[in-house]
Amino acid sequence: MKHEKAFFSKWEDLDQEKYLILDYYFESTIDPYVAAAHLCQEQSTAQWKRVDVDEDLRPQFGSKVIDLQVERQPETPSLPYQVETWEKLWGARVKIAYPIANFGPRIPNMLTAVGGEGVYYSPGIYAIKLHDIIFPHEYLEQFEGPKFGIEGLREWTGVYDRPFFLGVIKPNIGLAPEPFGELAYKSWMGGLDIAKDDELLCDTEWSPFAERTRVLGRLRKEAEEKTGKRCVYLANITDEVDKMVELHDIGVKNGADMLMINAMCTGLSAVRMVRKHTEVPLVAHFDFIAPFTKAPFYGVHSRVITKLQRLSGCDMVIFSGLGDRMKTPQNEVMENINSCTDDMGPIKKSLPIPAGSQWAGSFGPLYKMMGHRDFAVVPGRAVFGHPSGPTAGAISLHQGWEATAKGIPLEEYAKNHKELAQAIKQFTGKEIEQ
Amino acid sequence: MKHEKAFFSKWEDLDQEKYLILDYYFESTIDPYVAAAHLCQEQSTAQWKRVDVDEDLRPQFGSKVIDLQVERQPETPSLPYQVETWEKLWGARVKIAYPIANFGPRIPNMLTAVGGEGVYYSPGIYAIKLHDIIFPHEYLEQFEGPKFGIEGLREWTGVYDRPFFLGVIKPNIGLAPEPFGELAYKSWMGGLDIAKDDELLCDTEWSPFAERTRVLGRLRKEAEEKTGKRCVYLANITDEVDKMVELHDIGVKNGADMLMINAMCTGLSAVRMVRKHTEVPLVAHFDFIAPFTKAPFYGVHSRVITKLQRLSGCDMVIFSGLGDRMKTPQNEVMENINSCTDDMGPIKKSLPIPAGSQWAGSFGPLYKMMGHRDFAVVPGRAVFGHPSGPTAGAISLHQGWEATAKGIPLEEYAKNHKELAQAIKQFTGKEIEQ
Repeated sequence: MKHEKAFFSKWEDLDQEKYLILDYYFESTIDPYVAAAHLCQEQSTAQWKRVDVDEDLRPQFGSKVIDLQVERQPETPSLPYQVETWEKLWGARVKIAYPIANFGPRIPNMLTAVGGEGVYYSPGIYAIKLHDIIFPHEYLEQFEGPKFGIEGLREWTGVYDRPFFLGVIKPNIGLAPEPFGELAYKSWMGGLDIAKDDELLCDTEWSPFAERTRVLGRLRKEAEEKTGKRCVYLANITDEVDKMVELHDIGVKNGADMLMINAMCTGLSAVRMVRKHTEVPLVAHFDFIAPFTKAPFYGVHSRVITKLQRLSGCDMVIFSGLGDRMKTPQNEVMENINSCTDDMGPIKKSLPIPAGSQWAGSFGPLYKMMGHRDFAVVPGRAVFGHPSGPTAGAISLHQGWEATAKGIPLEEYAKNHKELAQAIKQFTGKEIEQ
Repeated sequence: MKHEKAFFSKWEDLDQEKYLILDYYFESTIDPYVAAAHLCQEQSTAQWKRVDVDEDLRPQFGSKVIDLQVERQPETPSLPYQVETWEKLWGARVKIAYPIANFGPRIPNMLTAVGGEGVYYSPGIYAIKLHDIIFPHEYLEQFEGPKFGIEGLREWTGVYDRPFFLGVIKPNIGLAPEPFGELAYKSWMGGLDIAKDDELLCDTEWSPFAERTRVLGRLRKEAEEKTGKRCVYLANITDEVDKMVELHDIGVKNGADMLMINAMCTGLSAVRMVRKHTEVPLVAHFDFIAPFTKAPFYGVHSRVITKLQRLSGCDMVIFSGLGDRMKTPQNEVMENINSCTDDMGPIKKSLPIPAGSQWAGSFGPLYKMMGHRDFAVVPGRAVFGHPSGPTAGAISLHQGWEATAKGIPLEEYAKNHKELAQAIKQFTGKEIEQ
């Protein structure tokens, strides 16, 4: 193929409300202009005319390169196992306008266009990563997005002027509903906002969903009466997709007042299905996302998945945050936070939850990085493994945030706050004298 | 963490019908025995006891290392961007027994366990790839699997003793149902078994699914009357998951007699949902699979996804096959073929379709590699871009297969078969004298 003009356009020459903008990095063994034209062809009008007809379907149905910058000329391929021999290599950033009418407001079909066979098997391109998707306003209007958004979440929970405190009930797997519920109850008594199921916990024989939500629904109301504040139970409805609406109904009836979905395990479209039906806020957990987001030169950038989870209707999005275990650069964490809260026209904001081995000491770095309070932490061990138990664990979170909000060093604040002192011991090994 | 004995077991000491076997390769910056114990902990009982209770949930709910082989001591990390500093590196292959009762016969929850946060964010492991899952018989019995299987497909289509000839109707995008149907009709007249929608084609304004299936349903019956043989129309029902059962019903009523799903774009569980309902064979297309299968040291091996598509109920699985564009090593292609046809107890076989830029010349290498005829080819351009049109294109496939089956060199056979000669010219540039 030549450098086909039909697959190139100026952005200002297009009806911009009718196109997605796709932002890819790719590496090619061929002239990147030719490679980019191939990419457009493969992901849209692979064959643009009938054999015996004088026609050209590309102007209307072809995707179009609107910007191409050759950024690098790598000496060796970033993904060596995808290319055996080469004369010359190019690393390029390309922006492509994709005609929305090819698929419409359908998440699975959009995914096919932006991340399907055509994209990852394009001639001459051996490595490619989808970095971003920009959606026009008209397109976004055809999605529901989060039902509550951040403002709605604050009304739903009564949590204002500070981050939300979630806690993953642990032991995550293996407890029957009653002892599991007792742990949640203890955490609510310490002021935890939202006690949640682990992503691994589902509707099992040893913890049937109906029974679990009944127990925790009852206990959270008891805790609300005792504490005079809202206590939320976030139940995991991740299951076969033809079961999820039913689980929603059972959970909500029994008193679960938020629901979690492991979005890439069910598929984003299943999240959207539940969103159309839901009466309570929806929370996305980040399973099966790392496998295609962690390589810098291949796959999909995590911000795209965060955006799509928001578009699918998640009020909160949990993603990999700071810390050694998460192996996620700070700028990537920040990009995911921004994907939750950046303007998306008619689509409400999702609450960002940059997760991973959090505790009372996690507020400082997050607050400093973000500069605002519209986020949540979601520790497990820091609440439910706290040496004095879940009530003390929840208290330690409040103390950690108070210190951060007041600008008092954590260890200083811990001198008069024993639950925080215990948490510091638990997570850093350091003894704080009381 | 120490090298915790609770996360290790001998396979023969376990109730083997109650466990999946997970086969991972990982690279660690820490002792691989400790790393493997961490991995089990993260993917199962992250915290295995309550703070104030003397208990241990690991024997019942913990996943267990049943084999660990240190294969390499890499000098530099395979995924350098995941690890900044190291003293020593290990590359290990580990087999883990995972207790099925943690999630039961639920695909999204199984995915969470085998490829969720716990697996890809395990301490000390900076690269990990899920290579295989072995399912016990009892577990497989809880899935439907393919409704037809290979034998059922042969009965459904009347295609015996040779590979199936599929063709992707092209132009794939942009044609209204009538001209689109005319192309399919021409291909059936040349003997194509199954004319199919492209994976990018869905229910759009310019080609509404109901109208398209009506037109092609009528035309395929006309073609059956004319040719006296079975002519199949494979319609793509990939859409939002709450729409797919309805599209199945519309399509089947209108005469579409196979249905396609871009399985990882809808989610595997949506495929299973359709499987429980379907009246016709289901076909999986390979979109959004490359992003997490192509890196050799990270993500998931493609054979796992092929197995899961079979488990979800796909009668045919299309995956990346031979050829430069597909960047897939021959052994990986063969592993995917075997994942379709290896014994899976009560689960029927899927027909393997190793795809990518195929034509009449593709039979030879595939047949030689596989040694049997239980496969399909799925060309687009070779049928619908054939210089003499789709009828000649379909004929060229028959000729290509005949030459292969008879052991006659393609160019030799082409001397008396002009459609094949034209195909050779189209794909290799070589003129064959008639």
